[in-house]
Amino acid sequence: MDSVARLSLNQITTERASLGETVDACARHGVPYVAVWRHKLAEVGLDRAARLVRDAGVRVSSVCRGGMFPAPTPAERAARLEDNRRAVDEAAALGAEVLVLVCGPAPDRDIAAARRMVADGIAELAPYARERGVRLGIEPLHPAFAAERSCITTLREARCLAERFDPATVGIVADVYHIWWDPEVCDEIARAAGRLVGFHVSDWLVPVRDILMNRGMMGDGVIELRALRTAVEQAGYAAGPIEVEIMNEAVWNTPLDTLLPLIKERYLACV
Amino acid sequence: MDSVARLSLNQITTERASLGETVDACARHGVPYVAVWRHKLAEVGLDRAARLVRDAGVRVSSVCRGGMFPAPTPAERAARLEDNRRAVDEAAALGAEVLVLVCGPAPDRDIAAARRMVADGIAELAPYARERGVRLGIEPLHPAFAAERSCITTLREARCLAERFDPATVGIVADVYHIWWDPEVCDEIARAAGRLVGFHVSDWLVPVRDILMNRGMMGDGVIELRALRTAVEQAGYAAGPIEVEIMNEAVWNTPLDTLLPLIKERYLACV
Repeated sequence: MDSVARLSLNQITTERASLGETVDACARHGVPYVAVWRHKLAEVGLDRAARLVRDAGVRVSSVCRGGMFPAPTPAERAARLEDNRRAVDEAAALGAEVLVLVCGPAPDRDIAAARRMVADGIAELAPYARERGVRLGIEPLHPAFAAERSCITTLREARCLAERFDPATVGIVADVYHIWWDPEVCDEIARAAGRLVGFHVSDWLVPVRDILMNRGMMGDGVIELRALRTAVEQAGYAAGPIEVEIMNEAVWNTPLDTLLPLIKERYLACV
Repeated sequence: MDSVARLSLNQITTERASLGETVDACARHGVPYVAVWRHKLAEVGLDRAARLVRDAGVRVSSVCRGGMFPAPTPAERAARLEDNRRAVDEAAALGAEVLVLVCGPAPDRDIAAARRMVADGIAELAPYARERGVRLGIEPLHPAFAAERSCITTLREARCLAERFDPATVGIVADVYHIWWDPEVCDEIARAAGRLVGFHVSDWLVPVRDILMNRGMMGDGVIELRALRTAVEQAGYAAGPIEVEIMNEAVWNTPLDTLLPLIKERYLACV
C-alpha cells in the first residue's frame, strides 16, 4: 500500500477546475487516473476531452454518471435510457472501463416501483454497454439520498440487482461514504466478489451538517478506510483504480497544487 | 383506522412546550397518549410529572430515551448504565410500558466494538427493566445518524440484537423516518413479529436540508405510511400506541391548539 499506482482523482473533488486543469494537475503530481463527470465533459466536448486526457498521459477510471432510470412516464424513461446510451458512448470514447450508475429516486412515494424501473433500465442498457466494452457499475448510495438520488441504498440490494446480469457487464461500485455504516458491509463486500468494478474513498465528517457536502479528506472522519480496502481487496478488487471522491466546499476551494499532494499523503497514510 | 384511540403525541413534537402544557393539550384535543422525553421530565421533576400526566387523564406510551451505551472507558460505560437504570425507574413511575433505546454512536472509529458495547449494555440493563415491568425498545436509527446517535442502523440489526433476549423484556421500536428507505423494510417488520413494542410516524421531506430536523407532518413527504402501518399490524403490533414524533422548527413554532387538530387530521388521513 506504499504507492499511488491505483490512485484516481474523481473530478468532483476538483469541482471548481476545468477538465484540462484537473488532468494537468494529475500529470504534474503523478496521479495516474482521473474519473470524469459528465457535466465537466459537456463543458469541453467529448473530442477535446479525450485529447486533453490523452495528452496529459492520464487514464480514465470511470465516467460518472449514468442511471436516474425511474421516471413517471414511458416517454421520460425512454429519454433517460437514451441519455444513458450517450453516457456509455462517452465512457467508451474516453477509454473508461466503467460507467458509474447512480440509479435515481422514485418519482413519487412508490420506491418499490422505482426499484423495478431501475432493474428494467439496466436490463435495457446492458447489451448496449457490452457491445461497447463498458461495464456498468451500480453504486448504492447512502440511505440519506434515497428520496433524491438513488432508491438503491445498500450493497446487498446492489449485489442482488447486479446478480441478474452477466458480471462482465454489470458490477458494483463500493463507495465508503455510502456504505460504512452498514452492519453487514464486510460480509456484503465478500459476497460481491467478482462483481466489484470500483472503490471510492473519502471520509464521514462529524458532526454532519449538509449531508451532500459532508464528505471529508481521508483521515478526517470516522470511516475505517483500511479495513474496507482490505475487504474489497480480499473480494478480488486488488488492482483496479481507487477513486478519491470528495464533495466539500473547503476541498473545492483548495488550490490544486496544495490539494493533490494532500490527497496523495492521506491516501498513503489512511487508505 | 378511523379513530385516534392509538394516537400518542411524542413530546419532541411540542419541544417548545412544557410537559404540563403538552398533556393539557392532549386532554383538550382527545389525544389519549403522550411519549415523555427525559429532558422535559427533568424540567418538572418525576413526582410532579407523574401527577401532571395522571391529572390530565393521559397515558404514557413510552419514555425517550435510554441507550447511549458505548463509551471509551469502563467507568464511563458504568455511568451510562446507571443513567439507564434511572430512565427505567422513570418509565416505571410514569406507568410507561416502554423505554426507547437510542443505542449510541462509537466513541471512535470502531463501530463493531460499539455494537458489542450496546449488546453488553442491554444485557446488563435487561434484568433491572424486567423487575420493574418496563420493556426496552431498541430503535434502529437512520444510517445518517450512525456516527452521532446510534450504531444500530437497520431493523435487521435491531432484530438480531433483540433476539438475544426475552421478548417480554427487549423489543424493537419501528420509526418510519429511520427505516422507510430499507429495501427489506416489510420483510424485516414481518420477522420482528412479537418483538414490536412501538411504532413512530412522521414523514421524510424533500429536499433534505438538516437531516435531524428534516421530519415533516405525515402526508408532507415521501413515506408510504399506510403500507408500513399495515406491515406493523400484520406483525402483531395492532393495538399499541402510535407515536407522532416530528423534529421540525415549523412544527415546533405552531401553537398547540393549531398543531394537535392537524396531527389528528393527518393521522386519520395518512397513517
